[in-house]
Amino acid sequence: MSLAPGLTEAFWAYERALMSNDLEALDRLFAPGGTTLRGDASGLLVGHDAISAFRGARGGAPARRIVETHVQEVDDEHALVVAVTELITGGRGQQTQLWRHDGDAWAVTAAHVSVAAPAFDRRVWRVVGDPLVPPTGSGDLAGESVAVKDLYAVAGHRVGAGIPAWLDAAPLETRHASAVAGLLGAGASLRGIARTDELAYSLAGTNAHYGTPPNPRAPHRISGGSTSGSASAVSLGHATIGLGTDTGGSIRVPAAYQGLWGLRTTHGAVATDGLLPLAPSFDTVGWLTREPELLGRVGRVLLPEDAATPGEIVTATGLLALADDDVRSAIEPLTTTAAAVEWPVEVLPSWLDAFRVVQAAEAWASHGGWLAGRLDVLGADVRARFEVAAGVTPEELAAAHAVVQTARDEIRDRLADRVLLLPSTSSVAPSVVDAAGLDAVRRSTMLLTCLAGIGGLPAVSVPVTTADRLPAGLCLVGPAGSDRALIDRAAQLAAR
Amino acid sequence: MSLAPGLTEAFWAYERALMSNDLEALDRLFAPGGTTLRGDASGLLVGHDAISAFRGARGGAPARRIVETHVQEVDDEHALVVAVTELITGGRGQQTQLWRHDGDAWAVTAAHVSVAAPAFDRRVWRVVGDPLVPPTGSGDLAGESVAVKDLYAVAGHRVGAGIPAWLDAAPLETRHASAVAGLLGAGASLRGIARTDELAYSLAGTNAHYGTPPNPRAPHRISGGSTSGSASAVSLGHATIGLGTDTGGSIRVPAAYQGLWGLRTTHGAVATDGLLPLAPSFDTVGWLTREPELLGRVGRVLLPEDAATPGEIVTATGLLALADDDVRSAIEPLTTTAAAVEWPVEVLPSWLDAFRVVQAAEAWASHGGWLAGRLDVLGADVRARFEVAAGVTPEELAAAHAVVQTARDEIRDRLADRVLLLPSTSSVAPSVVDAAGLDAVRRSTMLLTCLAGIGGLPAVSVPVTTADRLPAGLCLVGPAGSDRALIDRAAQLAAR
Repeated sequence: MSLAPGLTEAFWAYERALMSNDLEALDRLFAPGGTTLRGDASGLLVGHDAISAFRGARGGAPARRIVETHVQEVDDEHALVVAVTELITGGRGQQTQLWRHDGDAWAVTAAHVSVAAPAFDRRVWRVVGDPLVPPTGSGDLAGESVAVKDLYAVAGHRVGAGIPAWLDAAPLETRHASAVAGLLGAGASLRGIARTDELAYSLAGTNAHYGTPPNPRAPHRISGGSTSGSASAVSLGHATIGLGTDTGGSIRVPAAYQGLWGLRTTHGAVATDGLLPLAPSFDTVGWLTREPELLGRVGRVLLPEDAATPGEIVTATGLLALADDDVRSAIEPLTTTAAAVEWPVEVLPSWLDAFRVVQAAEAWASHGGWLAGRLDVLGADVRARFEVAAGVTPEELAAAHAVVQTARDEIRDRLADRVLLLPSTSSVAPSVVDAAGLDAVRRSTMLLTCLAGIGGLPAVSVPVTTADRLPAGLCLVGPAGSDRALIDRAAQLAAR
Repeated sequence: MSLAPGLTEAFWAYERALMSNDLEALDRLFAPGGTTLRGDASGLLVGHDAISAFRGARGGAPARRIVETHVQEVDDEHALVVAVTELITGGRGQQTQLWRHDGDAWAVTAAHVSVAAPAFDRRVWRVVGDPLVPPTGSGDLAGESVAVKDLYAVAGHRVGAGIPAWLDAAPLETRHASAVAGLLGAGASLRGIARTDELAYSLAGTNAHYGTPPNPRAPHRISGGSTSGSASAVSLGHATIGLGTDTGGSIRVPAAYQGLWGLRTTHGAVATDGLLPLAPSFDTVGWLTREPELLGRVGRVLLPEDAATPGEIVTATGLLALADDDVRSAIEPLTTTAAAVEWPVEVLPSWLDAFRVVQAAEAWASHGGWLAGRLDVLGADVRARFEVAAGVTPEELAAAHAVVQTARDEIRDRLADRVLLLPSTSSVAPSVVDAAGLDAVRRSTMLLTCLAGIGGLPAVSVPVTTADRLPAGLCLVGPAGSDRALIDRAAQLAAR
């Protein structure tokens, strides 16, 4: 290999440390400081500390051999080493390293690692094809491809619901869900069936069985859920339409976290036959796209004609204050022309608590029969929710129902025909390693998302970018039945 | 970005040249000479000329934007630039460039490019899942995953045969082909349905509709076919078993080109129901693996007990001489202990011609009914073969039949119970840009592969490596019905 003294030894010391996951040696062989770089398919890490934290969390690299090496000696203290790697399980990759000798030893100042891609990303997809299902008609969606959340019936396939045990027991579906059939009939094809949080009972996307789909615009952060795979498929360019559901935020949260456009439809506006329920009082069909034009085009295929016309755009400082500073700063430029209104914020915790009780009781009513006695098929987070759900008493449910009904009336009365602007989520996407904080994030985001959920109202999430260049979302909540016009209003707002 | 004079301008000049596919500017912005490097998922290119030839052939890069850049200034004349890129269609990648200032201008001496992987590689697969089809039983293949050539019936899916128009007209299969069912029953799952040359009538893998599957161990060279997708899936680590067919070499050629183990079974030894025919007199089931142990394990599942015992291992200098020098040198170390025998070589061209006439006539008999009047659904190479096939006269067929029958008797008599060593192919995998030479390569390789084809004999291809580190294959042809033992003999030979 190289003639630079010690470089060959350092290169192979690194390779051995990588294969044995010797974190201390790896830390030593990467140059200290904030400008050291390491990039792979998950994104670019900047700074020795970020790289070290990544290594500590991943549990080792796949076994590989070095097939060939090339060295470009830059000067006495720098050399570029390019290696072709081959995974023991097959497939080749490449590693490019810039090494620096700091007087003492060689260390890597920049590394770029590529490995052979797997057949497909099982965090995003369960099954995928070219296409998986061809169009059944022609129309406005010709040429578009759909990632279908694994809760919708696709003829000839099972519904997996994000749970391996559920998938194993599931029958082959004999017909498409209405929403799927609608897309196919308008000329779209199905690219595949995308991952979901278990039974859609999460907003995180951190499926315990299949992993967290990547979030390309916020590397090393969660995808958001429960429409997690569909959202990542659209972000990654694998599909143009991400079909999902929104009960308490499952479209709006991944849209905000990944910088996508998302629509939660008016409750009942799009038929839910062939769709596995979570909480039927709140469940809605929704979808995500990269551009508002396609969001609206899908709407004109799946939605009925609007039954309401959205009026004045308003916002409330109390709601904006529920988001972190970076999110609020990102959406404020789009709220400046909105009329300021009062919106009661102090009642939101009690509304959310009631929403969650009703959601839990309905989730247990939907799936408790199958889950009873086998809750251990679930990951810890969703299992904990179903355990609570199993314990909701009729009295608790009745009380929660009353609160939800009152809240629903108040939300609809207060909104009237207006369009309310609020943050889609309370924060940007949390880091994938911050699992301990996800429950708190869930609650603070649901204080915002539960308004449309309780109200049964349509909501559009518009992508915005924080000062740190992370995605976030501005949400427009409109009157029931105004879905199509609401998309147009959102697009106009964003275009300004 | 950087303060190094002119570097920022050079970086953006490169980006503009890439987006406009300005080949002259790109050539100028890459440093001249044989040590310049450029690597991406297709492999590492070494030397300015190889890089330039690659650019000239690919027709431009996908549209992208630069999301962020980082510069490490190495010294006055060198800088590393790392950029995060985002495709316009979604997904992020990374580009690492080492720039050098040669007194005159900045130029790249090494580049490493990663883009977001597509949902899956449509050159390799038509549909893929986790799994696509679960096992139906348990047994010796538990945990193995199969890439099924798109000629076999998989219940619930269509057979595509490598032709879009065929796929569009194909019915959903209601039951698995026998070979597929056998694998599933022994505990294997199906990873997916893999690409094939059109109706298996090629040895190249250069499907006109879906592209040429990658050959990871011989980058920028063809995959071999017609079991092209299954072979690449195994090479890439997407599946452990590549199920295919071998009529005139369609297992042995991709095995040799990609450094895999491959078995063509004795004609008739494994049932072909549910398998689209090419030329039934020669068609056989076959499979590819990365290791001989699994090749044999699949054999014990799909094959009957051996009906013959392979004896002495022999080789013939005349057959070895039909391969290029690099291939011959690579296999010779494995032939040194084989007894030298005479094998008639001068008759091979006439035997091959007769084989190809019978193959053509049977291919037309199998598919002429569907193809007549729509030959334009085929790519140029396979179309030309079917056009010839359509014109075979009964007299030509009868004459060819007689030659094939004589040849078959002579091959079987001469081989008796012995194992013949010969090159699997006449050459290493040709370059993907050398399409004009593929017909000549096909003929010289078929002079070798037609022996087992005409004889109806089992053949194992053992991977070897040339001096240039390219894959090639040593072929063992054994007596009919000796398949299982032949695999063992091949493994023993390779282990020495």
